[in-house]
Amino acid sequence: MKQTNSRDNERGELALLGEIRRRAASAARRYRSGDLRLSIGDDCALLGPRRGEELAITTDLSIAGRHFLLDWHQPEAVGHRVLARGLSDLAAMGARPVAAFLSLGLPRELTVPAGKRAETRAESKSWVQRFLDGLLALAEAHSAPLAGGDLAESSVALADIVLVGAVPRGRALLRSGAKPGDLLYVTGALGGAAAGLACLADLAKGKPGRANPPRIPKRLAARLAPHLYPHPRIPQGLWLQRRGLASAAIDLSDGISTDLAHICEESGVAAEVDAALLPVHPGATPAQALNGGEDYELLFTAPAKAKLPRSIAGVPVTRIGRITKARAGRPALTLLSEEGARPLEPHGWEHFA
Amino acid sequence: MKQTNSRDNERGELALLGEIRRRAASAARRYRSGDLRLSIGDDCALLGPRRGEELAITTDLSIAGRHFLLDWHQPEAVGHRVLARGLSDLAAMGARPVAAFLSLGLPRELTVPAGKRAETRAESKSWVQRFLDGLLALAEAHSAPLAGGDLAESSVALADIVLVGAVPRGRALLRSGAKPGDLLYVTGALGGAAAGLACLADLAKGKPGRANPPRIPKRLAARLAPHLYPHPRIPQGLWLQRRGLASAAIDLSDGISTDLAHICEESGVAAEVDAALLPVHPGATPAQALNGGEDYELLFTAPAKAKLPRSIAGVPVTRIGRITKARAGRPALTLLSEEGARPLEPHGWEHFA
Repeated sequence: MKQTNSRDNERGELALLGEIRRRAASAARRYRSGDLRLSIGDDCALLGPRRGEELAITTDLSIAGRHFLLDWHQPEAVGHRVLARGLSDLAAMGARPVAAFLSLGLPRELTVPAGKRAETRAESKSWVQRFLDGLLALAEAHSAPLAGGDLAESSVALADIVLVGAVPRGRALLRSGAKPGDLLYVTGALGGAAAGLACLADLAKGKPGRANPPRIPKRLAARLAPHLYPHPRIPQGLWLQRRGLASAAIDLSDGISTDLAHICEESGVAAEVDAALLPVHPGATPAQALNGGEDYELLFTAPAKAKLPRSIAGVPVTRIGRITKARAGRPALTLLSEEGARPLEPHGWEHFA
Repeated sequence: MKQTNSRDNERGELALLGEIRRRAASAARRYRSGDLRLSIGDDCALLGPRRGEELAITTDLSIAGRHFLLDWHQPEAVGHRVLARGLSDLAAMGARPVAAFLSLGLPRELTVPAGKRAETRAESKSWVQRFLDGLLALAEAHSAPLAGGDLAESSVALADIVLVGAVPRGRALLRSGAKPGDLLYVTGALGGAAAGLACLADLAKGKPGRANPPRIPKRLAARLAPHLYPHPRIPQGLWLQRRGLASAAIDLSDGISTDLAHICEESGVAAEVDAALLPVHPGATPAQALNGGEDYELLFTAPAKAKLPRSIAGVPVTRIGRITKARAGRPALTLLSEEGARPLEPHGWEHFA
C-alpha cells in the first residue's frame, strides 16, 4: 500500500493510509493466511502459493455514478459490493481467496469524518471509514486479507479491487469446458439483486443528496439485501472444484442472458434454458431472474451423469437447462417456455449510466 | 478482462475490449511466459509460479489531472508511465515480471479515433489506442504480458495497473533490511524526470486543449525522455537480488528525501546523504536530484564490505551516503555538504494537484 504524495493533502492521505494499514494488519493477524508472506509496507506484497497450486487473479473497477451511487448506497454496502465482485470471480474459478488489493480514488470530502453533525454513531465516521467497515467485514468472512493497494485524490469516487486466489494446478473451473449434452445449473435464487435495486430506487426517490443515501427501514432490509450485500459463492465454487463435477462455470454478474453467452462462446456450444425451472427470487419477476445482474450466483454445467446434490454448503442448486451443439445461423441461447422456443437475447445488467 | 455492460455504450466497450484482447494475445504469443497459464477471456487469469518462487504483487493508480495531464502528455507517454510505475515496484523487489493487469476508466471521447481530422498517422488513432501503443511496447520490452483487467466509462480518465512478478522464496529485496554501517547507493542519474517535467510545462504553456498535448520537437526529445519515458530498472533489481548484495531497496518514485525515509522507517535506522556524491542528471538542479520524483532509479543499501561494480547492466551505480543508527529526537535523514550537516526533510514529488 503506497500513497500518492502531494503537499496539500499529504497529511490526510498518510493518516488514511495509516488507518487502512492498522486495520488490515489486525485482520491479517486474526485470519492468518500462510500464503501471504509480506503485506502492506513495502513496494510489493509477497505471496507464496502452496506446492501444486496456481494463482487466480482478477480485477474489478467500480466507479461512482456507474457501479454505485453516493446518494443511494450506504458506504458499508459500497465496500461490500466492491469486494463481492472480485470474490465472486474467484468463486467462479473454484479458487480459495488468498489476498485482496484495493486502489482507491476519493474526493477529499469522503475522507473527512462527519463528526458531531451525524445523527448516528456510524454516521460520525468518514465515508471511507464506513466503506472499509463493509469491505473488511466481508474480507474477514472469506479470509481474504487486504495486502496492499494505492490511494489518490480523485474528483470521482472509484475503487479497483484485485483478488488473488489459489487453486490446485489444472483444477480451476473455466468458462470453456461445457459440452453438448451437459446439464446447466445455478446456485441460489435469481433476480433478487434487480428486485432489491428497484426497491432502493423507490426509497431514494425524492431524497437526493451527495453522499447522503437513505437509511434502510428494517421492514425492507431483507428485500434490499440481495442487492446491497450479495454473498459471493466461494464455498460452492470450492466444493465444485474439489469434486471435479462441473465442466464449466461463470458467476452471474451481468445476468444469465449475458453470462451464459460467455460460456457458450468460450466453449463453442449452444444452450437451452427452461423458463419453468428458473429459481426466481421471492419478489422478483421472471425477467429480472433472466436479465437482472449482480446476483453473483454461480452458473455451471456438468455432465448428465454427474450426481449433484440439492444444495451445496446450504445454498440450493437448481437444474435450469442443457448445453447443445452450436449450429451456424442459429442463436446460441434458446429460452423454452409454454409458448415454445425463442432466442434468448443478451439483456445484461445496465449500470447507472 | 471483462467489460462493464451498459446498453448505450456496450458496442464501444466490446470493440475496445476485443482490440485489447487481440493485441495482448498477440504479444503474449511472441513473448510467451511459461508462468501465465490462462489470460484474458475467463473470470480470472491463472498464473503458475515455478517451484521455490514467491509472487510479488503491486498496484498503482494513475488519474488524469493528478498523475498525468491530457493536455500535456502524449497518450503513448501516459501508457508508458502507467506501466513503468508498476514495473519499477517489481524492480525494487528484485522480481522478474510475470504478468500485468489493467483497469481503465475512460471518458467516451478518448475511445473514438480522431480519423481524418488528424494531422499525423499516430493522431488518427483514438487516445486509448495510442495509450495502449505506449503501454504494450514497454510490456513487450520487459516480457510482462497483459493478462487481464477491467474497463468502464468514467468522467475522468484513470488507469490502475497491477504487476505480478516472481522471485525465489526469501530472496526479495525489502525496505526493511538496512543496517547501521551499510553504504547507500543509487542507480543512474537523478532529477532528470523533474527537469524534463519543467521543460514540458514550458512547452505546454499557452497551448491548452483537452487531449491535445504539444508535439515534442526533436531537439527536446532527449531532455523530456526521463519524464515521459522512464526506464524501470528491472535488470538492475534482478542483478542485485541474484547476487544477494543489497540489504534493502526501494524505487525512487517520490524522490530521495521521501523514499529514503521509507527505508529508514521500515529498517529502524537513520541515513546520511553526501550532496557532493549525488549523480545529478545533466540539466537538472541538485534540488531536483534530491526531491524530484519519478526518476524510477533504484535506491539501495549494501554492507560496506560488499563489492559493487561501477555499473549494472549498463547503468551506473553511485555510492551517495551511508546508514547510521536511529537516535531518538534526531532527524532520520541528514544531508552532508560543504556547509555542514542539516536535516533532510521529505519534499517528495508533487503530483498535478
